[in-house]
Amino acid sequence: MSAATDERIDAYPSRLGGPATITERHDPVVHGSGDGPLDADVVQSYADDGFIVLEGLLAPSEAAELNAEIDRLAADPAVRGRPEAIVEPDSDTLRSLFAVHDLEGPLGAIARDPRLVGVARQLLGSDVYVHQSRVNLKPAFRGKDFYWHSDFETWHTEDGMPSMRAVSCSVLLTDNTSWNGPLLTIAGSHRWYVSCEGETPANHHEQSLRRQEVGTPDDASLAELYRRGRIAQCLGPAGTVVFFECNIMHGSNSNITPLPRRNVFQVYNSVENALEQPFAAPAPRPHYIANRRFDPI
Amino acid sequence: MSAATDERIDAYPSRLGGPATITERHDPVVHGSGDGPLDADVVQSYADDGFIVLEGLLAPSEAAELNAEIDRLAADPAVRGRPEAIVEPDSDTLRSLFAVHDLEGPLGAIARDPRLVGVARQLLGSDVYVHQSRVNLKPAFRGKDFYWHSDFETWHTEDGMPSMRAVSCSVLLTDNTSWNGPLLTIAGSHRWYVSCEGETPANHHEQSLRRQEVGTPDDASLAELYRRGRIAQCLGPAGTVVFFECNIMHGSNSNITPLPRRNVFQVYNSVENALEQPFAAPAPRPHYIANRRFDPI
Repeated sequence: MSAATDERIDAYPSRLGGPATITERHDPVVHGSGDGPLDADVVQSYADDGFIVLEGLLAPSEAAELNAEIDRLAADPAVRGRPEAIVEPDSDTLRSLFAVHDLEGPLGAIARDPRLVGVARQLLGSDVYVHQSRVNLKPAFRGKDFYWHSDFETWHTEDGMPSMRAVSCSVLLTDNTSWNGPLLTIAGSHRWYVSCEGETPANHHEQSLRRQEVGTPDDASLAELYRRGRIAQCLGPAGTVVFFECNIMHGSNSNITPLPRRNVFQVYNSVENALEQPFAAPAPRPHYIANRRFDPI
Repeated sequence: MSAATDERIDAYPSRLGGPATITERHDPVVHGSGDGPLDADVVQSYADDGFIVLEGLLAPSEAAELNAEIDRLAADPAVRGRPEAIVEPDSDTLRSLFAVHDLEGPLGAIARDPRLVGVARQLLGSDVYVHQSRVNLKPAFRGKDFYWHSDFETWHTEDGMPSMRAVSCSVLLTDNTSWNGPLLTIAGSHRWYVSCEGETPANHHEQSLRRQEVGTPDDASLAELYRRGRIAQCLGPAGTVVFFECNIMHGSNSNITPLPRRNVFQVYNSVENALEQPFAAPAPRPHYIANRRFDPI
């Protein structure tokens, strides 16, 4: 669907040939009453900063079980050959594996775990489903950086997610320290929408998941978001769970240390925010990147 | 001079075709009496960890004056075209400029500053001279990582530095935080020497200063050094000065943040440790990388 024939109202235009702009978000950050398992001050912190770090939400034994399952998958050449597997640009090492919420065993179970789903329901004010899930492996010694981006900008333009009513949940499976390439956010940046220059090429996901170019914010916008906010690192031992808002600007530096960094990640979207046609891409992305079964968990 | 005709005793063989090994260092870390401007507990910390961080050694106005001088040099295309200038692999941005201790003005003055030279004399137990100096600019947004290495391994093999009796001094000219690609060390690793595989090709410095390959320690040795020590970050506001031992394993992650990182760096070597012929390279490196005028400061 091209911009010219698309008569929908696009609250968050991007990649439509215009210049980069910073505009206020139109959606609430915390949807609904805000009632649920999190205390009010934690919800407020999420509203203010755009993320929360819940240390100890999972027991070490649970993190170990998930790690063992990922080791098993990463060692399997058949898994690395799947379309939902992304390997490092310079090697055959598994970097990400998508759609892990659909797998049998502990990876499927963690995506449906009431401790995580309860938080997502609280923040989104409705039933939720998994929009996307993956495991991320940042190897020791040669882990690449991942440049700043807003997930929502991609989900809106490429997947047709209409509104900012989704939350990402990252379960840390190794100790995340300040020196092994942890998640960096610009705290407060979720309140602003940065539109991107350029247009989405066909089959963009085939290269963007390895090294993103279109959908990358410009330097001036990033510097301005930083001026309005601050850099925050999401740190914690294995078993820590980080929730971050779909529009927060985030990324990570490289990892030269001997400690790999690993997490399992699922995006909960409100069932009231189901995907439509892409707002700025030639065709929807595959189902293993952007799930189109919207049944509540 | 080839290994076959070189009859010198080589206390630290590397790049001679053998496998990677970890051996104990033969030299003291603190040479001589250890008397000088630093308190005994600071000297002990240097002996134990291989580095010290001296916050506030320079006033903010002094850092600002050095920054202004570097801005002036980095903006000058004639400077970027000098052999002693190294530009980023993917752009024409200045990454390093060597031999800045030879320049007029604040960069020459800081290399001779008694606050820095006094510490070097204390740690090395003798008069000192500048073996190498440079400014390092890690740009915002796209600053590349710098992989683990021991400076001494290179200075020994390529420059003919016989013993471990040199200290690097890094003057931080921007705030160095845990998230903008600060200096990482493996604390304690200076007590071990990691020999490297491979052999030094001719004119190695022409590419190694952009992206090092020969002289890079192997994964198993790095993991073992980490097991024996710990990762430490050298952080502080502009004006902080870091001294680190010539054999400590160090490197840095990338910098995607909007804050550039910049320092001026000089290596003080003992006048009793003057360079000889390279121990494992076809020819000495240029004078702007490895100074062969050994007059004391």
